[in-house]
Amino acid sequence: MNSLNEQFSQRLSVLEKEYKNYLEEPMDLNITRGIPSVNQLALSEPMLGLLYKPEDFLSQGNIDIRNYGELTGISEAKELFSTILGATSKETLIGGNSSLSLMYLVLTSKLFTSPSSWNAEKSVKFLCPSPGYDRHFSMTEKLGIEMIPIKMDENGPDMDEVERLVSKDAAIKGIWCVPTYSNPTGIIYSDEVVDRLAKMKTRASDFTIMWDNAYAVHHLTNDTRVAKNILAACKKAGYPERPWMFCSTSKITFPGAGVSAIAASEKNIKLLSNELSYQTIGYDKLNQMRHVKFLNNSNQIAKHMEKHASILKPKFDLIQKKLNERFKESNLLTWTNPKGGYFVHLTTLDGCATEIVKSLDKIGVKVTKAGATYPNGNNPKDNSIRLAPTSVELADLEKAMDIIGLCIEMISLKKVILVRN
Amino acid sequence: MNSLNEQFSQRLSVLEKEYKNYLEEPMDLNITRGIPSVNQLALSEPMLGLLYKPEDFLSQGNIDIRNYGELTGISEAKELFSTILGATSKETLIGGNSSLSLMYLVLTSKLFTSPSSWNAEKSVKFLCPSPGYDRHFSMTEKLGIEMIPIKMDENGPDMDEVERLVSKDAAIKGIWCVPTYSNPTGIIYSDEVVDRLAKMKTRASDFTIMWDNAYAVHHLTNDTRVAKNILAACKKAGYPERPWMFCSTSKITFPGAGVSAIAASEKNIKLLSNELSYQTIGYDKLNQMRHVKFLNNSNQIAKHMEKHASILKPKFDLIQKKLNERFKESNLLTWTNPKGGYFVHLTTLDGCATEIVKSLDKIGVKVTKAGATYPNGNNPKDNSIRLAPTSVELADLEKAMDIIGLCIEMISLKKVILVRN
Repeated sequence: MNSLNEQFSQRLSVLEKEYKNYLEEPMDLNITRGIPSVNQLALSEPMLGLLYKPEDFLSQGNIDIRNYGELTGISEAKELFSTILGATSKETLIGGNSSLSLMYLVLTSKLFTSPSSWNAEKSVKFLCPSPGYDRHFSMTEKLGIEMIPIKMDENGPDMDEVERLVSKDAAIKGIWCVPTYSNPTGIIYSDEVVDRLAKMKTRASDFTIMWDNAYAVHHLTNDTRVAKNILAACKKAGYPERPWMFCSTSKITFPGAGVSAIAASEKNIKLLSNELSYQTIGYDKLNQMRHVKFLNNSNQIAKHMEKHASILKPKFDLIQKKLNERFKESNLLTWTNPKGGYFVHLTTLDGCATEIVKSLDKIGVKVTKAGATYPNGNNPKDNSIRLAPTSVELADLEKAMDIIGLCIEMISLKKVILVRN
Repeated sequence: MNSLNEQFSQRLSVLEKEYKNYLEEPMDLNITRGIPSVNQLALSEPMLGLLYKPEDFLSQGNIDIRNYGELTGISEAKELFSTILGATSKETLIGGNSSLSLMYLVLTSKLFTSPSSWNAEKSVKFLCPSPGYDRHFSMTEKLGIEMIPIKMDENGPDMDEVERLVSKDAAIKGIWCVPTYSNPTGIIYSDEVVDRLAKMKTRASDFTIMWDNAYAVHHLTNDTRVAKNILAACKKAGYPERPWMFCSTSKITFPGAGVSAIAASEKNIKLLSNELSYQTIGYDKLNQMRHVKFLNNSNQIAKHMEKHASILKPKFDLIQKKLNERFKESNLLTWTNPKGGYFVHLTTLDGCATEIVKSLDKIGVKVTKAGATYPNGNNPKDNSIRLAPTSVELADLEKAMDIIGLCIEMISLKKVILVRN
């Protein structure tokens, strides 16, 4: 045992020397967020020149999309996005460039301005499968909704726990889900999980599933399996008003100028349209038409996404290679190998993630704040790190992964030695 | 007297015959809303082709506007819109295509999500100078804010009444204003009104002026006077956090794909940016850059607006001509002759407006619902009609004005005869 400790200590002092060198010459690398690279952005440049003929400005041949109107979106866009979301046109509403705004719209409508507003109730709680998307959680916190973390595994949220909680507490009004290539673990909800979410009995009669299908078509491999359609499952289970499905083209065309969409039951879409009618006369219809002309249909979207994948796949492969090289034989780290989406998730030894992220920050490698992917930024195990490799060049990612590996190993070894002593 | 009544009756029976003919062959004309015409939309078509070179996608030479970020807008857009609104770049935030959404953002932030939210108070009231913009009022009603109508004259709201009310009631949290070419009367707030709004003592310490500068640059003549800058006036008066100023390019470029902006004190903009950060990662920056390249600066905006005016002026002139022909010598109607904006406002005999609008509707001429420009759709005098002539062709407007004149005269005469008997 003592000799093993010594081995660890020797290795640690090698790593610390290496780390010190980086301290003297810090890098400047940022892999904190799921941001497309410049090469990916270039893929959609042709979209910007698609509107110029008089007929390009007409929806259904007679509605001038340069003018006011069409609150719920042009019908051509509804058709396109309804296929991405797996709904009918009437079940689809087109938003501006941000699906996050649509989620905020749904939640604030339910909380503050709809006839039976949640705000009138004593407390409102949401289930938050964790790790999850930090912006879901910060929005929920901001709106004064209490967050209940739910464990995630490779099939989705822990459904035993979800069912147990929703069956007894009427204050639990909803759940956040990223069903396909979940942020950050990259897992796909199993059919069983989707069916149980759709069928479960909830004390809250207006229980709401916030189904953020941000990575619905964002495959990295030829295995293009996606999560089962929650709207269809809920309809079948007799709860058609339960789910709201979201998507956007932020990571299909441009994050800075995309189109978002929402799908839900026709009744829900009508309610939401009414809410929306007090806030706007309509979203940007020219940008909707640009997207319709550029993306056209499912096949064309798939072809376009293959171009994204050809840029992204080498980055995800590099991460696997680098992590395998350093950690395959060790038990200091486990990690995901997603078939799509924007993230790789690392599970460190308990109590190490914050310190690893801090040590990376000191030498100029910024990764997502440890805990950010948990409600209130609080991961009790402190063992979760999200890597967002998409925006950096391959060469920079390689450097970053060397340093990330170094810091993980260094901090983990310190911890191991501490525990053993 | 009797002979005058007889004269009226004879004239009325002529008008009723004429009306009957229209009943048999109804028109199909809609002048309900302030909508640009197709010719106006065509003016901004060149804007759509302005982004194609790599440097077109960069803000300040290094921020890729196709990607995420720049929550408060690209700096070039802030510069442009701050000149329209009369603020600094730091006092300006760029929105999506809808200034209405920005107004909703300000109100909902204050009501529901900001630290000292109005929602916690017993009641919240707003002053509503009337006639005013119906969408302001429907939003206010939707948000559960009690509306207090305030009389308008040619200088703006009745400031004696405004000062009296705000000085005694802490529940009065704000006022709606369309300061330049007010919707629907077309008046411009006098400097005195602006100064009194800025200086007045309010019981509510967070009294808020919603300054909808929708027609800031929308002149019809060479007389380009505009309302005094409320932000500057409030700063001078020691209430820098009082006003929020709004504008959009809906009636400069495209209603369906414009850019909106808001200006307020730096402190207010920071607070609002924080609120916004929970709802979106940023608005459409490519559209912001399109507008920057197309509109460029104040001079270019003015030149562009002259093209709009050359299309619009003949319509406004026609309305004056037609109303003068029929009503100049009568006391059945008064009307405005605005130097800008999108509306002509008619003041009918008391108790006639609703019936006039109904009689128009029956023969296929749709004008804005009588009362729509008053809080809760309720104009106690029932004497207000808004004409929105911009979207129709001149020939159609001529027909519409004949019929509008007919219906006003017919209903008014009926009323006069009724009163005299």
